[in-house]
Amino acid sequence: MVSRRFTAEVLNVGNELLDGRTVNTNLSWICGRLTQLGYVVRRATVVRDEKSEIARAVKEVLRRRPRWLFISGGLGPTHDDKTLEAVSAALGKRLVLYPEVVTRLEKRYMQLFEKGIIKDPTLTPERLKMAKLPRGAKPLENVEGAAPGVLLERSGVRIVCLPGVPKELMSIFERELAPVLAKEAGGRGYVVRSLTVRDVVESVLAPVLVDTMTRYPSVYLKSNPKGVEDGSVVVVDFIAEKSREDELRQAMEYFGKKVEQMRGG
Amino acid sequence: MVSRRFTAEVLNVGNELLDGRTVNTNLSWICGRLTQLGYVVRRATVVRDEKSEIARAVKEVLRRRPRWLFISGGLGPTHDDKTLEAVSAALGKRLVLYPEVVTRLEKRYMQLFEKGIIKDPTLTPERLKMAKLPRGAKPLENVEGAAPGVLLERSGVRIVCLPGVPKELMSIFERELAPVLAKEAGGRGYVVRSLTVRDVVESVLAPVLVDTMTRYPSVYLKSNPKGVEDGSVVVVDFIAEKSREDELRQAMEYFGKKVEQMRGG
Repeated sequence: MVSRRFTAEVLNVGNELLDGRTVNTNLSWICGRLTQLGYVVRRATVVRDEKSEIARAVKEVLRRRPRWLFISGGLGPTHDDKTLEAVSAALGKRLVLYPEVVTRLEKRYMQLFEKGIIKDPTLTPERLKMAKLPRGAKPLENVEGAAPGVLLERSGVRIVCLPGVPKELMSIFERELAPVLAKEAGGRGYVVRSLTVRDVVESVLAPVLVDTMTRYPSVYLKSNPKGVEDGSVVVVDFIAEKSREDELRQAMEYFGKKVEQMRGG
Repeated sequence: MVSRRFTAEVLNVGNELLDGRTVNTNLSWICGRLTQLGYVVRRATVVRDEKSEIARAVKEVLRRRPRWLFISGGLGPTHDDKTLEAVSAALGKRLVLYPEVVTRLEKRYMQLFEKGIIKDPTLTPERLKMAKLPRGAKPLENVEGAAPGVLLERSGVRIVCLPGVPKELMSIFERELAPVLAKEAGGRGYVVRSLTVRDVVESVLAPVLVDTMTRYPSVYLKSNPKGVEDGSVVVVDFIAEKSREDELRQAMEYFGKKVEQMRGG
């Protein structure tokens, strides 16, 4: 069991994720980065663009007390962008206008105006909405878009809100969060290596997987069957903390030998 | 608000979904099919391969009482396949050996043996594990793999367990569940059409989206910003029940005109 200090949850907001229009690549990307950085994502939740649903999910995560909660989606200027309203409601905080974000938005829309992308740089109510953050939150600069990210803390849980547009989400994560996460994890991180096993079905590999994990308890093995049509293919992932990379290599070697013996036997 | 009869939740099980190794295409596929069939997916949850975590998530879903719960992953023969154990624990049911599934597994492994894919068709403990289902469950035939799907009901919630291998999941869904779902929904279903708007940023479109939805309340509009680097691109999805396809077309026409007026004005 990993220490709570290195746990995270993800909450993705968006109808498009629950009606099949969009594949949730934000989730796999965030999870991949957090794993590399040494964190374990305990759970992910996907909810629709409904204020009460989002707020309910946030409250549930807070009760489970991960160290970090990453929320994606629902920060933009349109009617279905309700994340900050919901987070504020869940935390009992008010949304307040952040002058520094207003300034950034003014600058951004002026740039779009000067480039001829928009005809009027005025901060309309829809644009100003993006400068209203839960009281006490820290805005996270979005150099790729309008809506800033948001960082706030409640009961020891750091809550991060990121835009759903992948490029904006990634940029804020890398610029504003990755350095903090890396420092906090202090060189932790997970290594994953894969081995593709051909012509030995998963039910035959099963006891070898357990045998290898018993011998190398710091290494976790996970098998991914890829079909048995033209001979079985199973991809086996070996996962360990960076500091245990030697054992991971030994486990792969041991597992490989066992599989070869089985094939020959 | 949609009637409870047409609501669903999804629970995806697998460490690989929470450490970035695998993009959750099972979720988008299931959600897409359910939406076409007339259902609304209220929430999706992703948990790790841990019995207690899976059981906890199942209990939480049952409290929210969707009509259907689709669980994917964790049905196979290896150590990390814990879904049925967890579902049984959550429902207070015992896992029992299903003779009909044993017969199917015998047949399957005999076929693999005859094709030369495995060297021994014996039903080892790892293989037999897949024939142990929660008492009272109905096995769902898997013509693409070994582990059967599972259907059971608790407190008015129909719980479906499907393998995580996409081909197997899709096959069981289409053969065993889609006909039931279609019949239950009785011709309901959602239509989604998209319109790509160039050179009008999302903050400008925002009031037009609201205006269109106010005029056509049976149509839901959702905008998806795709970046403003070389001129803004926003994809607007129009969503309505099948029976409201006329209004959906009118709403698209109305929206298109408004956007053109804005562009000209």
